[in-house]
Amino acid sequence: MEHKGCTIWFTGLSGAGKSTIANELEKRLKALGMKVEMLDGDVVRTHLSKGLGFSKEDRDTNILRIGWVCEVLTRNNVVAIAAAISPYRDIRDKVRAMVGASFIEVHAATPLEVCEQRDVKGLYKKARAGELKQFTGIDDPYEAPLKAEVVCETHKETLDQSVETILKALTAKGVLSPKGVPAAA
Amino acid sequence: MEHKGCTIWFTGLSGAGKSTIANELEKRLKALGMKVEMLDGDVVRTHLSKGLGFSKEDRDTNILRIGWVCEVLTRNNVVAIAAAISPYRDIRDKVRAMVGASFIEVHAATPLEVCEQRDVKGLYKKARAGELKQFTGIDDPYEAPLKAEVVCETHKETLDQSVETILKALTAKGVLSPKGVPAAA
Repeated sequence: MEHKGCTIWFTGLSGAGKSTIANELEKRLKALGMKVEMLDGDVVRTHLSKGLGFSKEDRDTNILRIGWVCEVLTRNNVVAIAAAISPYRDIRDKVRAMVGASFIEVHAATPLEVCEQRDVKGLYKKARAGELKQFTGIDDPYEAPLKAEVVCETHKETLDQSVETILKALTAKGVLSPKGVPAAA
Repeated sequence: MEHKGCTIWFTGLSGAGKSTIANELEKRLKALGMKVEMLDGDVVRTHLSKGLGFSKEDRDTNILRIGWVCEVLTRNNVVAIAAAISPYRDIRDKVRAMVGASFIEVHAATPLEVCEQRDVKGLYKKARAGELKQFTGIDDPYEAPLKAEVVCETHKETLDQSVETILKALTAKGVLSPKGVPAAA
């Protein structure tokens, strides 16, 4: 059976939990038999962003490129999950406009202090020491969404709770049926 | 019904007929109710290749990027059609390896003299005058495929004949049934 496609777009600071939630969500949707493609940092660095840096222009090009792949997948009934910092609101809104009604923005809204305390990859430490430049939240801006479909407060809720909230949004968008199974395309 | 995906990869000189055949093929496959995505020069320039030039390295990055999108689409049961000059054999073969058994290489094998005589976009004239550098076939190499699934000799056959040959190759690959309808995934 063909099910509906959509784009689930994670945005948030480094260490906010984007990939953790996205990976768990991917598992859950695949267990429902859905076609899912994950566009996370690794995929993007390997296949899409070579040659791009961290200026606003390059970041925008990168996000629009990921957004275009999401759009193509969505219209072919695939669930595309993107997990990139995507710090600029105007460009996220451009992707939203490209994808259309099946765009679901998920804000991993973990405060900077918490992300910096976690510092799983040691990047904040390097950024504070000036070894990493143009690091989002430190010396580069992050513009939080004003109307995200889902806000995950990972410092106040469990991973399961975050995933459940997203699944509810998928039901609200008609991608999952009220019974939580994939809706026919 | 979900049908099988595949990648139909056109290669050939500028003016060899890649886009003309690809567009006609796209129409025919869509008329069969298939999901088709065309990755031609326009799509690639707009969404994928910004920032890349015409060195071998940049051309390779571009082709691998298109190839990756084709791979993702193919495994999600979409027919991906790529129409790029893709002059280097080693990189086309890398894309072939990425996509796997559902890769169909179509060589638009129109001789340089014929392409240059057509010169639809006036590019050969500019290249001969030295106004365009690194132009494939003039001052940049083109490595013809050694084992393309389909060879279209557009200087000796009609558009319809070229398309029919490709449809036969799709049947041989199991993407179309022997009756010429989409095969179930």
